[in-house]
Amino acid sequence: MIMPDMATMLCFILTDIAVDPTRLNEALVWGVERTFNRISVDGDMSTNDTVFVLANGAAGNGSLSPEDFQGFRAGLATVMDELSTMIVRDGEGATKLIRLAIKGAATPADALAAARTVANSALVKTAFYGSDPNWGRIMAALGRSGIQMREEGVTIWVDDVKIVEEGMGRGAEPEAKAAAKMKGKEFSVTVDLHEGKFEDHITTCDLTHEYVSINADYRT
Amino acid sequence: MIMPDMATMLCFILTDIAVDPTRLNEALVWGVERTFNRISVDGDMSTNDTVFVLANGAAGNGSLSPEDFQGFRAGLATVMDELSTMIVRDGEGATKLIRLAIKGAATPADALAAARTVANSALVKTAFYGSDPNWGRIMAALGRSGIQMREEGVTIWVDDVKIVEEGMGRGAEPEAKAAAKMKGKEFSVTVDLHEGKFEDHITTCDLTHEYVSINADYRT
Repeated sequence: MIMPDMATMLCFILTDIAVDPTRLNEALVWGVERTFNRISVDGDMSTNDTVFVLANGAAGNGSLSPEDFQGFRAGLATVMDELSTMIVRDGEGATKLIRLAIKGAATPADALAAARTVANSALVKTAFYGSDPNWGRIMAALGRSGIQMREEGVTIWVDDVKIVEEGMGRGAEPEAKAAAKMKGKEFSVTVDLHEGKFEDHITTCDLTHEYVSINADYRT
Repeated sequence: MIMPDMATMLCFILTDIAVDPTRLNEALVWGVERTFNRISVDGDMSTNDTVFVLANGAAGNGSLSPEDFQGFRAGLATVMDELSTMIVRDGEGATKLIRLAIKGAATPADALAAARTVANSALVKTAFYGSDPNWGRIMAALGRSGIQMREEGVTIWVDDVKIVEEGMGRGAEPEAKAAAKMKGKEFSVTVDLHEGKFEDHITTCDLTHEYVSINADYRT
């Protein structure tokens, strides 16, 4: 369902639950905000992405208790997470999936701004492609994201390998371990800003030669 | 003076004019805002770019008249424009220089936001690489830039070839002419939003296979 130009996407999720349309919409928005709105292939926002949830009530359940609704909402978000992650895996030329998490931000807006800026940085994404734990590029992206931060407050991990502590690189050995993790098809990058209690995340991919080929040759 | 990682730049401009330091700084800021702060290779803001202007007063001129100062300021900006344009020409993997102008914006901030969003779009920059007058990508970048705009108000030119009028593509013939212009090493893209009287510009380059090679292999 993904067109190669601008990732135009139509998503249909069907359920037989009986649920009030207002609450169904609430669950939809809650889930989309955590999943579809937290992915990025190249930072180019698509113009007409759409997610529909259709519930026909065939399950015949009675009115949903708060717990039931929470369960439904979580299940719906799980489906959305799987679908939206598939989009990134299928990103133009992508060879790797990266789960980027920002922790310890001063505000929710800071957490999201940091995540988006790092995830969309061409320098960070090419370093992902090269399996290069180039944390200077991550720090630089954080620095230009406009968030509240102190360089000396930053810790960075690649999977479970801590490569930066108190804003300083931890040297060749952790970086070699991180580079090995980054050679895989999927890894996480976690940044703790130590400024506050807020966190956010973006699922993204690398920027590759194939991305350039696909998008340079799209119409020519 | 450009390092391949993050385009760290130190610029020194020397003049023998006698000019008050306050006014020299005024001319510096005026020029930088129009030149160095209007270029982008990949949207990754560098962390320690610096421009110095040093004036030793050896010219022995008297106090500058307003006209003299305007002349000095314009001359300084011309030097800065040449230097900053050289940075883009020397951008990692760049094969083309693109002068992007936004006209008819509702506010100065809109003009700059539109210019930055279009210039930094990976999809637009790969289309430049492919000599593809893919105006849909320009429209999409404008649409997500957050500015005041109406699709039907937009006109787009590549050099002197009008490819979009009132938000609609003008067809295969102008696009073929535009593609021919885009095969050159330098061309302009001009967008008129027809929303107001403000304009701004960014000088940028294309996003190429070589950009990915340089930045993916930087440390590995």
